[in-house]
Amino acid sequence: MGKHPLPKGFLAGGIHCGMKKKRKDLALIFSRKRCKVAALFTTNAAKAAPVIHAQRQLARNGGARAVVINSGNANCMTGARGLKDARKTAGMLAELLGLGKEDVLVSSTGIIGQFLPMKILGEGLPRLVESISSKGLADAADGIMTTDSFRKISSRSFDIGGKKVRLTGIAKGAGMVKPDMATMLSYIMTDAEISREALKKALRSASEVSFNAMTVDGDMSTNDTVMLLANGEAGNRKISEKGKDLELFLKNLSALCRDLAKMIVRDGEGASKFIEVRVKGAKKKADAKRIAGSIADSLLVKCAVLGGDPNWGRIASSAGASGVKFDPGRMEITLDGVTFFRDGKVARNVDRKASSVFKKKNVRIEVNLHSGRENAVYYSCDISKKYITLNSFYTT
Amino acid sequence: MGKHPLPKGFLAGGIHCGMKKKRKDLALIFSRKRCKVAALFTTNAAKAAPVIHAQRQLARNGGARAVVINSGNANCMTGARGLKDARKTAGMLAELLGLGKEDVLVSSTGIIGQFLPMKILGEGLPRLVESISSKGLADAADGIMTTDSFRKISSRSFDIGGKKVRLTGIAKGAGMVKPDMATMLSYIMTDAEISREALKKALRSASEVSFNAMTVDGDMSTNDTVMLLANGEAGNRKISEKGKDLELFLKNLSALCRDLAKMIVRDGEGASKFIEVRVKGAKKKADAKRIAGSIADSLLVKCAVLGGDPNWGRIASSAGASGVKFDPGRMEITLDGVTFFRDGKVARNVDRKASSVFKKKNVRIEVNLHSGRENAVYYSCDISKKYITLNSFYTT
Repeated sequence: MGKHPLPKGFLAGGIHCGMKKKRKDLALIFSRKRCKVAALFTTNAAKAAPVIHAQRQLARNGGARAVVINSGNANCMTGARGLKDARKTAGMLAELLGLGKEDVLVSSTGIIGQFLPMKILGEGLPRLVESISSKGLADAADGIMTTDSFRKISSRSFDIGGKKVRLTGIAKGAGMVKPDMATMLSYIMTDAEISREALKKALRSASEVSFNAMTVDGDMSTNDTVMLLANGEAGNRKISEKGKDLELFLKNLSALCRDLAKMIVRDGEGASKFIEVRVKGAKKKADAKRIAGSIADSLLVKCAVLGGDPNWGRIASSAGASGVKFDPGRMEITLDGVTFFRDGKVARNVDRKASSVFKKKNVRIEVNLHSGRENAVYYSCDISKKYITLNSFYTT
Repeated sequence: MGKHPLPKGFLAGGIHCGMKKKRKDLALIFSRKRCKVAALFTTNAAKAAPVIHAQRQLARNGGARAVVINSGNANCMTGARGLKDARKTAGMLAELLGLGKEDVLVSSTGIIGQFLPMKILGEGLPRLVESISSKGLADAADGIMTTDSFRKISSRSFDIGGKKVRLTGIAKGAGMVKPDMATMLSYIMTDAEISREALKKALRSASEVSFNAMTVDGDMSTNDTVMLLANGEAGNRKISEKGKDLELFLKNLSALCRDLAKMIVRDGEGASKFIEVRVKGAKKKADAKRIAGSIADSLLVKCAVLGGDPNWGRIASSAGASGVKFDPGRMEITLDGVTFFRDGKVARNVDRKASSVFKKKNVRIEVNLHSGRENAVYYSCDISKKYITLNSFYTT
């Protein structure tokens, strides 16, 4: 079953149908039993057709048995025809799988402003259905990638009342080696028996500390989607909206989502270093996260990390620019374990050129506001010339 | 008097005192009569000492006769000693000029986290005072620059009731060729007789369409300052908070501020192209501006402009990511006069490589939402590998 087994009752697969030149471009996730589904979608006003379609389906049904994902074409800015194509894709797949069309969700990622190649898709779907198996997860993970340089899978298992419950997820990143391709997609399967409200609560909560706490270039896609599918086959006592079982489920889901989020950041295009930003001692959690996000998004901070320059002034400035009110004199700034500012004073005058800070593959920025007890973490990466090259001169 | 004469009763000058290696690093603006002063400061929580000092002075007095600006040291994250140094600088200058210390404002720009070199400053101030003249504007403009590649001056004159009124401004940009130097400063002088309320209103309004409608890299400085000084020497009938005279003053002030803002963007570090983003047909002005700002700030859009790629999908996506709700199907996207998306459909399938769009030094992005009558303009520049180099490897 490999390192990351599928939860009970799930099958997956992926094939190359011709939307992309060579790499796999179609993936399928299937469950023997109907799943409850919790999902989060982009808040972009220019939502892609499959996002609108999936939102409507889930508002109506709250569940599904299959998710089909294509890469290479985002089916975005494609108007009424795009929506019709998304419905048609779901319908064709439902027929092939012997399901109702309300049991199929669709997702897309790739270029904006082109219609889905329905003929190619129609020819590919039967082969896609044939490809699914209990060993097909890696192929599915490959099928959703656009310009990711490695596949992203993570899994967890834990006991609830003596029954083993599994969580297994795949993701694709915002590594935009080719233009127009900038979508974060993630699909997480579980065999847990869980109420839909608990499922939604867990996904929202886990995403806050993972997918919603990472940044590659600050751009938000039109197709971003995270889905959590639960088919209940583990036979555990039902996880409800409160209590220890939900806590355990959430703990494992959060760890899994953090795994995937970190992989996405590490695979950020042109990125050479992974950045963890920790903000401590804030009055409110939201403030801590906003400051961490402001530091993580700062181009000047990313450049400092790239250059191995412990430029703490940029970190103070980007924290201050977050919009959160705080006393900068109480700030403590520690980079890779070395404190640069504390008690209102410069703590250390380093020879920045000779410093060991920001020199490794993984760097850590810590800001303590010393004004409360709330913390937050944000994941980011540095920016390199390669990013500029990749996103500017795609034809050469 | 040169191309940009000073308004009546103003003198200016600039010298090299030793805070920077070679270039001028100290500037002075002086008025024979007391000026009413309107000012806008950074909203960064980590405000520099001179910003705090100037805010306090203006809250108390509402006016000044002199502004001294140093470049090379931001006097930021310097705590109580930084504030004392700012006060001391004002006091020394006041004594040299025979003014009360409440009549002097100070500004700083440069590296964060180092104390002002008070000895060097103290030796430089007497020479600075000697340097001022009616012809010293260019020297003052040079004195406030950090890594700007050219000096930024603009002026206007117009008649109010038969009296000639002048507006003359200088600015420095956020061209951060060296790290830690990321401040926008601008000082505008006028000999207009104008009420302080009218002056404040005019500066807020003009800044909205100029300094607050431009972006180089989305980073906000700890020292940003715009000051408008009016000494009333033109002898015009007093401009009040309403009416045609204020409109005329505002029109000229806005044009001057736009001149300076455009110069700052053109001089953005590593920038090769100037981008004007126009958003039309919004329901609210704030919505139009927010969408324009989101497009102007998008790294992917900047990369597309650099690469000469008319990637309209990125523009649709960054407009959608602004947080403003609108119907993407009604959007019209026009790049350098060529319409790519209209009436819910792709208007043109170009060979993007061969297209003439985004190939010139000045590019224009137009988005019409077709849902209202409000417009906004934002100024930006592309991003290049040089930006990354300049901000990462400052020691090499």
